[in-house]
Amino acid sequence: MKLTKEQKKEIEEQQSQKNSTKRVTSPELEKILYEALPVLDHGFVRVVDYMGDDTSIVQSARVSYGKGTKKVSTDSGLIKYLMRHRHSTPFEMCEIKYHVKLPIFIARQWIRHRTANVNEYSARYSVLDKEFYIPSKENLAAQSTNNRQGRGNLINGSQADEILNLLKDDAERNYKNYEKMLNEKYDGSTIDESKQGLARELARMNLTLNAYTQWYWKTDLLNLLNFLSLRADNHAQYEIRAYANVMIDTLKKWVPITYEAFMDYRVGATEVSSKGKHVIKKMLKGEKCDFENSQLSKREWNELMTSFGFNEKII
Amino acid sequence: MKLTKEQKKEIEEQQSQKNSTKRVTSPELEKILYEALPVLDHGFVRVVDYMGDDTSIVQSARVSYGKGTKKVSTDSGLIKYLMRHRHSTPFEMCEIKYHVKLPIFIARQWIRHRTANVNEYSARYSVLDKEFYIPSKENLAAQSTNNRQGRGNLINGSQADEILNLLKDDAERNYKNYEKMLNEKYDGSTIDESKQGLARELARMNLTLNAYTQWYWKTDLLNLLNFLSLRADNHAQYEIRAYANVMIDTLKKWVPITYEAFMDYRVGATEVSSKGKHVIKKMLKGEKCDFENSQLSKREWNELMTSFGFNEKII
Amino acid sequence: MKLTKEQKKEIEEQQSQKNSTKRVTSPELEKILYEALPVLDHGFVRVVDYMGDDTSIVQSARVSYGKGTKKVSTDSGLIKYLMRHRHSTPFEMCEIKYHVKLPIFIARQWIRHRTANVNEYSARYSVLDKEFYIPSKENLAAQSTNNRQGRGNLINGSQADEILNLLKDDAERNYKNYEKMLNEKYDGSTIDESKQGLARELARMNLTLNAYTQWYWKTDLLNLLNFLSLRADNHAQYEIRAYANVMIDTLKKWVPITYEAFMDYRVGATEVSSKGKHVIKKMLKGEKCDFENSQLSKREWNELMTSFGFNEKII
Amino acid sequence: MKLTKEQKKEIEEQQSQKNSTKRVTSPELEKILYEALPVLDHGFVRVVDYMGDDTSIVQSARVSYGKGTKKVSTDSGLIKYLMRHRHSTPFEMCEIKYHVKLPIFIARQWIRHRTANVNEYSARYSVLDKEFYIPSKENLAAQSTNNRQGRGNLINGSQADEILNLLKDDAERNYKNYEKMLNEKYDGSTIDESKQGLARELARMNLTLNAYTQWYWKTDLLNLLNFLSLRADNHAQYEIRAYANVMIDTLKKWVPITYEAFMDYRVGATEVSSKGKHVIKKMLKGEKCDFENSQLSKREWNELMTSFGFNEKII
Repeated sequence: MKLTKEQKKEIEEQQSQKNSTKRVTSPELEKILYEALPVLDHGFVRVVDYMGDDTSIVQSARVSYGKGTKKVSTDSGLIKYLMRHRHSTPFEMCEIKYHVKLPIFIARQWIRHRTANVNEYSARYSVLDKEFYIPSKENLAAQSTNNRQGRGNLINGSQADEILNLLKDDAERNYKNYEKMLNEKYDGSTIDESKQGLARELARMNLTLNAYTQWYWKTDLLNLLNFLSLRADNHAQYEIRAYANVMIDTLKKWVPITYEAFMDYRVGATEVSSKGKHVIKKMLKGEKCDFENSQLSKREWNELMTSFGFNEKII
Repeated sequence: MKLTKEQKKEIEEQQSQKNSTKRVTSPELEKILYEALPVLDHGFVRVVDYMGDDTSIVQSARVSYGKGTKKVSTDSGLIKYLMRHRHSTPFEMCEIKYHVKLPIFIARQWIRHRTANVNEYSARYSVLDKEFYIPSKENLAAQSTNNRQGRGNLINGSQADEILNLLKDDAERNYKNYEKMLNEKYDGSTIDESKQGLARELARMNLTLNAYTQWYWKTDLLNLLNFLSLRADNHAQYEIRAYANVMIDTLKKWVPITYEAFMDYRVGATEVSSKGKHVIKKMLKGEKCDFENSQLSKREWNELMTSFGFNEKII
Repeated sequence: MKLTKEQKKEIEEQQSQKNSTKRVTSPELEKILYEALPVLDHGFVRVVDYMGDDTSIVQSARVSYGKGTKKVSTDSGLIKYLMRHRHSTPFEMCEIKYHVKLPIFIARQWIRHRTANVNEYSARYSVLDKEFYIPSKENLAAQSTNNRQGRGNLINGSQADEILNLLKDDAERNYKNYEKMLNEKYDGSTIDESKQGLARELARMNLTLNAYTQWYWKTDLLNLLNFLSLRADNHAQYEIRAYANVMIDTLKKWVPITYEAFMDYRVGATEVSSKGKHVIKKMLKGEKCDFENSQLSKREWNELMTSFGFNEKII
Repeated sequence: MKLTKEQKKEIEEQQSQKNSTKRVTSPELEKILYEALPVLDHGFVRVVDYMGDDTSIVQSARVSYGKGTKKVSTDSGLIKYLMRHRHSTPFEMCEIKYHVKLPIFIARQWIRHRTANVNEYSARYSVLDKEFYIPSKENLAAQSTNNRQGRGNLINGSQADEILNLLKDDAERNYKNYEKMLNEKYDGSTIDESKQGLARELARMNLTLNAYTQWYWKTDLLNLLNFLSLRADNHAQYEIRAYANVMIDTLKKWVPITYEAFMDYRVGATEVSSKGKHVIKKMLKGEKCDFENSQLSKREWNELMTSFGFNEKII
């Protein structure tokens, strides 16, 4: 990730603000406010504003006149209780806003979370940056053979080189032709003064899906947790997980008690189906229980066994 | 509106906070933060948190690295443009949170705005305050004779007194019986130690719809504007308009440029239908145009004439 | 629940429709379409329209040109997979619309589900029916002593009679005074020709929260499942559970495969936290594990033990 | 637009369904149900399901036990009234589902309408079709010189040919390299049996933004109208307008009364600001009013004059 001199200056100017407020603040989050946290080869995540902290959850759950906090231990108990019982509305009472730079094909996954507020950089209006995501070699995986939407073994050697070259060449050529059609270079200079450029809203269609876009993305804490639990999950595509993981760090700084509860009751938790519970109950009683009499599918059986520490998979 | 000593103290404690932040602040809004602004006989509106100001709208519309502001005049031009052309997403980038005390029948109108975040005081869990809305005499209107969901003339004299007495007596008796069923008074004291009280989730059904409830209500600026334009409109019921008007004052303090644009392009604006435009065009050309050849309904004709300063109603 | 002659006739007329359509239909649901299914003393649930069936979920998950169904067994496998892995969007592709009559205090809980479409009978515009919910004796429970939002033992004998009389008397008197203020009886007749009536939007505030209202409520299948899993849960208030249970019957008729998956993976399932899993793992290995070294709160320990068939509660 | 033999057969099978239902039907919409209506060079719109018709709006506005219709003229009056006064909730009571094939850069605009339900064809899971949008010559416009997000004059001659060739060549090469990386051709055949293919979720990043994707898109009528009024507007990009226009035809077949009201009160209507109304009022009174004393910006003045039939633009 590279920032221009001007961008760095703008960020520093914002970071040098010292405003006085009667609102609650989150001191750890303030420390990294506006900072561009690098993700992938050219992307970043920046926290640009926030509202509320752990005490705001308590305050609204109690509909109180004053601050939420009585004691930290009481607040912590209540937040855990709310998380555990999916009493979700108090978590909507905190809000956070990010500035994110990300490849378009990842933006297309991300935008499916409909409850957020979004302003995306408009390629109808402006010329996109000349930056494309090229995976690093350790992320260049083959199609999984047993999971139609997952990755399998790494691709190595000359095939890896060939693929990386194709990705790079195609992205660069398409960007160059994008400039040609626009009759304008990425730095704003005109290519041929005697010609008109193609409308931006048309020229952009020549770009590849690994081109970087950027947006302001604002959401409440509940919907942030939903986003993170889906996108930091190991079924999520690596590239979006990279963003989710950086955002989980910002979550920890912002609302540390909620973060703890989230890791215990959501990220680390497992939902056990009615039939799955039946299996575990029998095993706990010491009764014989195997796949054949479990009423579970193979996949369910394997997932259940893995969750509870057994490795004997059925294939 | 009366606050208890404890409530006053809690509010003062919050107002005495002086935190340092790198976030933008809205100085005029800070001045009234946490203050209970009275509405109706026992209700209030308190701004308890906010995020962003006018510059945040500009910042996200530009997806910028720095603060939105270049110059106030530029920002103002952009905000007006966005409002006029209903480019609405940048207005979603500001957020505000209110603590509101309001009669239940008004809460039932209010909650129909689905995009907000809400935590209501739970009468399953706690005992409601002993406060009911009783209209003042100048708001005691008869059913309108020409608008099935509106008010007509004032009701005066003994009929007014009778109505106010009925409202007061019924609310008080029902509250008293609510306490009796709960076996608990509004101040928490037990009525008869030898008895159990009815479950709160059941006893509450005896309350009248003018009993006061309260909630934390959080929304983004766009949805606040939608709420205000509908609820401050003169077709809205007086009691909810009273809340909307106080909230418009807080809007003005929070985001003064947006407030100006909102008053000009939304509150004071009129939508003219295709047929309505045809009428005005003819009138502007000096052509004869009257109701008969207008293709408008009587109601539409009257509304159009009123909007453009004519008083000749058709009935 | 009583329907007027005219209402019955309107329902029968709708039920006698025989239209031809190329859309998929749900034969079992068609059988009860428009029928008023009784709930509580005066309420009902009527399915008044629907879109799609189990095959629609499959069809959209595959973004197919034709019908979803290849074979019922394949469809069933896919639907279970989607439910289990919370791939939720295909379930949004079915839609259902209910006409519901319900007490206002229950309507206030129900409306918190924000994703639905709602049209409520307007008491600004019309006079409400003269019907109130009065609990049956077997539902007249005392406040729970260990759960602040739950019910405990039944209230019996003379205290029960007294409570039921208070509820009935207050509801009836308040309705009578509502009519008096309106100067209009529930059947539309005027009380005193020489007087004006109070505006409906004001008079309604005198009604009690157990008065019945009604609405059209439309939602997609995913949000219906969310509603049902929360409101059919035994932590939900009995009165709303009564509605949810009747609606689960309609779910079974509409989308039987989804219903099966819902009962197994949602209604009958348990979410086990990270710490909870640690406990179960140890127990499965035969290691000693008790409350003291579990890192769980008492409440969590008890809930976990109950879920997996142990009765030894810690208090 | 070309459909495969198998796709045609699947569509015909659906169209040959004759189911009996008690639900209301929309006979004109039934006629084109499932049909692929062509848009752009390879795209289409198919109505694949719907719920309700004009009478459903009336029915829910009245919260009635029977069908909405009393008389067509009464229904029509009510629907117009609801549209004019933005009583929007009854329009949410109808629902429609489309299957749409569209270029990715258009899908990215479309998806910003957050209230719809969507299932998109997954390029993590499957290989995308080998089809790209190439504009026709009459749509190959230069960047507008006075509107940063619009089109200006047509580009002609050799520059046009060059641009079209670039678009075609880049899309085709990138698709070919996509196949190469996948080690699989668009028809499912393997390229080199000795090699693994790159994971689909990675290979897709090499595609251009004019590649076609497809999705199931379901929305209620209110949100469909919002979509259409924004996307059929002449400020919208031509390519999305092409979809909106075809969908307006399906709207007309589905709910003809709502269509009429929509064209009059929304599509053909103009919102006049408070200051704009002041100008028109003066002109109607015959008072002198020109740009200088109007308090409007140049752009506002021009827009106002155009709306009311004057051509005298200020530049």
